[in-house]
Amino acid sequence: MDIRACIFDVFGTTVDWRSSVSRDLAAFAKQKGIAAAVDWVKFADEWRALYQPSMEEVRSGRRPWAILDTLHMESLAALVGRHAIAGLSQADLEHMNRAWHRLDPWPDVVEGLKRLKTKFIIAPCSNGNIALMVNLAKRAGLPWDCILGAETARAYKPMPDAYLRSCAQLGLAPGSVMMVAAHNSDLKAAKAQGMKTAFVARPTEHGPGQATDLTPDASCVDLPATDFVELAARLGAIPLR
Amino acid sequence: MDIRACIFDVFGTTVDWRSSVSRDLAAFAKQKGIAAAVDWVKFADEWRALYQPSMEEVRSGRRPWAILDTLHMESLAALVGRHAIAGLSQADLEHMNRAWHRLDPWPDVVEGLKRLKTKFIIAPCSNGNIALMVNLAKRAGLPWDCILGAETARAYKPMPDAYLRSCAQLGLAPGSVMMVAAHNSDLKAAKAQGMKTAFVARPTEHGPGQATDLTPDASCVDLPATDFVELAARLGAIPLR
Repeated sequence: MDIRACIFDVFGTTVDWRSSVSRDLAAFAKQKGIAAAVDWVKFADEWRALYQPSMEEVRSGRRPWAILDTLHMESLAALVGRHAIAGLSQADLEHMNRAWHRLDPWPDVVEGLKRLKTKFIIAPCSNGNIALMVNLAKRAGLPWDCILGAETARAYKPMPDAYLRSCAQLGLAPGSVMMVAAHNSDLKAAKAQGMKTAFVARPTEHGPGQATDLTPDASCVDLPATDFVELAARLGAIPLR
Repeated sequence: MDIRACIFDVFGTTVDWRSSVSRDLAAFAKQKGIAAAVDWVKFADEWRALYQPSMEEVRSGRRPWAILDTLHMESLAALVGRHAIAGLSQADLEHMNRAWHRLDPWPDVVEGLKRLKTKFIIAPCSNGNIALMVNLAKRAGLPWDCILGAETARAYKPMPDAYLRSCAQLGLAPGSVMMVAAHNSDLKAAKAQGMKTAFVARPTEHGPGQATDLTPDASCVDLPATDFVELAARLGAIPLR
């Protein structure tokens, strides 16, 4: 395989959104003295459950282009109402919405990305917007070469343009770019556009009872790997000194 | 000043395009045994002289959006004809066009950017396209947090959208973003959109006889600096260990 760039799904594949969002919100609630008895892990799951429907409004053309920070904020407002959480200012809601800018990477990610960066262009190809990706990367130490994905492509995955424009923006044919994800559906869509694909299992993304994406789908996965460090090794990126 | 991000002009400010392009083309001509007696420094100047007119076609709306790699290639084809350089294949022309992906930074740039990166988001805000910026940065070791500029903004500087959309993509107000350039015209346009500005003199960008942009224009420059390291110091970014 003549791979020149590896581009990565982020939520779930690169970072542990569920633990990070729930921990961040729980700490904020405690600090603010929020009285409502909220299960913040459940709250994070509910927030994430509104993610695909909110993007589908844009994909379908029913609403004009909007970045994920905007969609996240609308979903958050709905959940705050559902859970009857009172006393939040606009600044509080903005802080809570930015929990998605403060997600922790899985333990193998920083080492794996640093190693992959020595041999390949590395970039996120996420549905997150540029500011979200930049803030997340600076906090977590993710050494991206650039930020690609929904905002630069102006298309939400799994729309073909999200993949095709990302490759074009690197000046590369899809066959020279590897999409890395923990979700077979993402890789199926990338593969359909001619990209190479790597599956990295994240069996606790959705918690201990996770039943989906435990194994790679051989029909769309070129390279399965246990984590980003093994991926770097499999792709011939030399270990760091 | 409450600065959160510094975004940079690249051609001339961050990299020495004139020496780099002329040296790259001269080496390629020698390797290919190109017979034409070409002054490659003059050739680089002529190529650069076609830069603003080529973008003006896009800015004016006379032609649809096109990335700089495309504009550079059209200008190159015109110059190859003007100088009657024979025997170049399409692959040769593409290699020559990619001289703009292989530009050397000024000596202070890598240290200055590494230092600025510890305190600020740093990104190019160049008229170069994403692939050009990524390839240039990987070769030169420029540690950008993301790639902004003409292709993500879909507008060529000095159009207001080139600045405003770059700030918006970082989720920041223009007043929290500093535009860094060696060209007063760039800073004047950024200032008009509410950005902060820093001028770094590059008195040999156009060679030993340069007569323009030798000093900052006080009407649009918030912060003058001799180079990127001094800029980092002036902005309070701590020295690297």
